[in-house]
Amino acid sequence: MNFCSQCGSKVVLRIPQGEDRTRHVCDQCGTVHYQNPKLVVGCVPELPDGRILICKRAIEPRVGYWTIPAGFMENGETLQQAAARESMEEALAQVEIGSLLTVVHITPAHQVHVFFRAKLLSEDVGAGPESLDVRLVRPDEIPWEDIAFPSTEYTLQRYLEDRSSGADGHHFTELTRRFR
Amino acid sequence: MNFCSQCGSKVVLRIPQGEDRTRHVCDQCGTVHYQNPKLVVGCVPELPDGRILICKRAIEPRVGYWTIPAGFMENGETLQQAAARESMEEALAQVEIGSLLTVVHITPAHQVHVFFRAKLLSEDVGAGPESLDVRLVRPDEIPWEDIAFPSTEYTLQRYLEDRSSGADGHHFTELTRRFR
Repeated sequence: MNFCSQCGSKVVLRIPQGEDRTRHVCDQCGTVHYQNPKLVVGCVPELPDGRILICKRAIEPRVGYWTIPAGFMENGETLQQAAARESMEEALAQVEIGSLLTVVHITPAHQVHVFFRAKLLSEDVGAGPESLDVRLVRPDEIPWEDIAFPSTEYTLQRYLEDRSSGADGHHFTELTRRFR
Repeated sequence: MNFCSQCGSKVVLRIPQGEDRTRHVCDQCGTVHYQNPKLVVGCVPELPDGRILICKRAIEPRVGYWTIPAGFMENGETLQQAAARESMEEALAQVEIGSLLTVVHITPAHQVHVFFRAKLLSEDVGAGPESLDVRLVRPDEIPWEDIAFPSTEYTLQRYLEDRSSGADGHHFTELTRRFR
């Protein structure tokens, strides 16, 4: 951040009065530009036969690697709506969002990733503009060596463990790597 | 948003190529300025005797009304760290963050509020710079008519219900009002 988005003046980095940390501040119009973590939201869509939906990324970062439907949450939607929207955008998939599965803090990237379990309502899926390919896979078919992000890998692992044990809880973790 | 924070040029509102919604775009340097929901994080600190910690707000919005420790999540911290930091800042309170309690979508305000249960580790609390007063209250002493925010009220209600029934789960909701 170099300029004030309100008035266009140069911003400076300093601790505003009454605060305890450095912010981008505009001394011209007085605006303090706070920067906060962003939410990335997704789900693990599962068919009644147990196969799950994965997507091969068509866009950076990690083009060509596999993930589950996920993306930045937009203003005006709930976490569940964001997860369903991403499933439709990335895999043309109709899903019913279920229970909370994982919350992954990627602290150096200033991101919080939130994943839900989901019912995939139809096998009629396909690659959206952000995907090169989509697949419905059994657990033994998951391409673990080609998973795009550590948060995806963590989420798929917890998902399969919980499914095996019949658990329906959620898991918090902190990961310091955004990419594999 | 009026100006590009990267190059200082005027931004325009339009749908960028390959996207489906209006964004603030800088046609000078090409930056798309995404705006995403912000996380507000807090907790319900409880003493072993069952009293809980509430704070009277010293800052806008809702000066003079009661809330529980909460505030905007900062970059570089986890949700749990944010909730503990806010408890210290607003009530000089040492807490141990427990299970997830509520997730409240305030969609018109572009905020997601996340609250945890917490152990209050000492009765030695006090008003931080953002509080006029703090109190340790029994359920029948909660000033329901003077609670600052609908998300606080929702969270305290779920907290007390769950405590009565011995439940330890979490609750999602969407509220369309930020203030009472």
